[in-house]
Amino acid sequence: MKRVAFFISDGTGITAETLGNALLAQFDKISFQRVTLPYVDSEEKALMAVAKINQAAAENAATPIVIDTIVDRRIRTIIDTADSFKVDIFEAFLAPLEQELKTESSYSVGKSHSPANSANYLNRIEAINFALDNDDGARTRHYEDADVILVGVSRCGKTPTCLYLAMQFGIKAANYPLTEEDMEELQLPKNLKKHKHKLFGLTIDPERLAAIRTERKANSRYASLKQCYLEVDEVEMLYEQENIPFISTTDKSIEEISTRILVTTGLKRFQNK
Amino acid sequence: MKRVAFFISDGTGITAETLGNALLAQFDKISFQRVTLPYVDSEEKALMAVAKINQAAAENAATPIVIDTIVDRRIRTIIDTADSFKVDIFEAFLAPLEQELKTESSYSVGKSHSPANSANYLNRIEAINFALDNDDGARTRHYEDADVILVGVSRCGKTPTCLYLAMQFGIKAANYPLTEEDMEELQLPKNLKKHKHKLFGLTIDPERLAAIRTERKANSRYASLKQCYLEVDEVEMLYEQENIPFISTTDKSIEEISTRILVTTGLKRFQNK
Repeated sequence: MKRVAFFISDGTGITAETLGNALLAQFDKISFQRVTLPYVDSEEKALMAVAKINQAAAENAATPIVIDTIVDRRIRTIIDTADSFKVDIFEAFLAPLEQELKTESSYSVGKSHSPANSANYLNRIEAINFALDNDDGARTRHYEDADVILVGVSRCGKTPTCLYLAMQFGIKAANYPLTEEDMEELQLPKNLKKHKHKLFGLTIDPERLAAIRTERKANSRYASLKQCYLEVDEVEMLYEQENIPFISTTDKSIEEISTRILVTTGLKRFQNK
Repeated sequence: MKRVAFFISDGTGITAETLGNALLAQFDKISFQRVTLPYVDSEEKALMAVAKINQAAAENAATPIVIDTIVDRRIRTIIDTADSFKVDIFEAFLAPLEQELKTESSYSVGKSHSPANSANYLNRIEAINFALDNDDGARTRHYEDADVILVGVSRCGKTPTCLYLAMQFGIKAANYPLTEEDMEELQLPKNLKKHKHKLFGLTIDPERLAAIRTERKANSRYASLKQCYLEVDEVEMLYEQENIPFISTTDKSIEEISTRILVTTGLKRFQNK
């Protein structure tokens, strides 16, 4: 049996989803069917949401869970009439915060994601463009402006991590693939040497690497287990020899890899502000 | 005076940051200094966090705010000893959810972001690679596999939106830049015609577009206000003529643009699962 869980918001619903998924993840024996209802910002839409919740309640033996981040009290009151178990984040925390901060909350909608003109937002977009322009060692002349330069063998996770660092934290991350030729001499390519303090290494379990490469180029030397072992061995030796901090991406999500890079390097979110 | 706000987690801290920023955004008269402490997953690290909070309390006239998503009760109890105002998400909601779901929560750490081997996570990474491989009209032969194809003039926000759709929702989004030549004939390029039902248009205020293009190529025809007005006019005529749904990206964040695309198209998160 599936429990239906609604994530409801007057904005994008991304905060409600993030928190909702964090809470539901603690109940791994239960299988949830997740429904996000964004932009519930009028009485009419609130009534439609209530109808959807009640329908889910009628169709299932179990009461739906509702996790909402609706700011407007009038709309929240309508959602309250639905047949559901409610996790009401703003209800739970805004009033106590108002007391502690001795200020009324602005009850303004859609504030959770920085508005499109804020300095943070522009930094994020700039960082995304930086990651794209400085991907895969295509260009190295902007490395002066990089906050961090990820290095590693092909397909160890550099590009998605750079994009996540940019999108989530506004960090300008370039990446450079270490090739067999670079490693044969067991030294850093010249372009990287002068930015050595910005380098961060990624490594990966050779068997996982072979599986990933096989999806791209099956039966190639590039994807062979032997080649993957060789490259990973060499790259790790290089990191150790050159004192480059590194982590393994095996079984880590881009969120985890990125956060660990921040912790290790001390890079701050929205560095350039 | 700045209020220090700590976001503390035993995982990446991304859930605590997301929720914390949503709550603090409601108090726009107060200026917060945000500090994220991820991976507080041992008693020792909890004591270090307490020391940091107490230091902030001593240095500032105002009590620090602590927003945490720590799962382990023992560690949470240590954090509780700090001189702070605590917004304790799991404390507030896990026990009531346990009762409602008639199950004990697993109190497992770092569950909020899908583990690196889950179907959802692999979908996200696949979608990121798809967005990169099918960016900017470079290739159109994989459009069969696209969930959505964003179209629009150069620099209206297509690429960052595709990447966000991939990263946040696991949606495979390609994008195709409509050029002056395409629009002169006021018809869709041949490559797009057969995927018309997957097209979604972006538009943008011409003055904003000129500003963005000027940052890239100052004093060019490409960045001129006249050219921007012309392209935007034509592209909007084309959308209307071809019945392509479209939205303006002006003043909208990639979160908002992406969510509105989902709402309009009916595309589901993690479509391919």
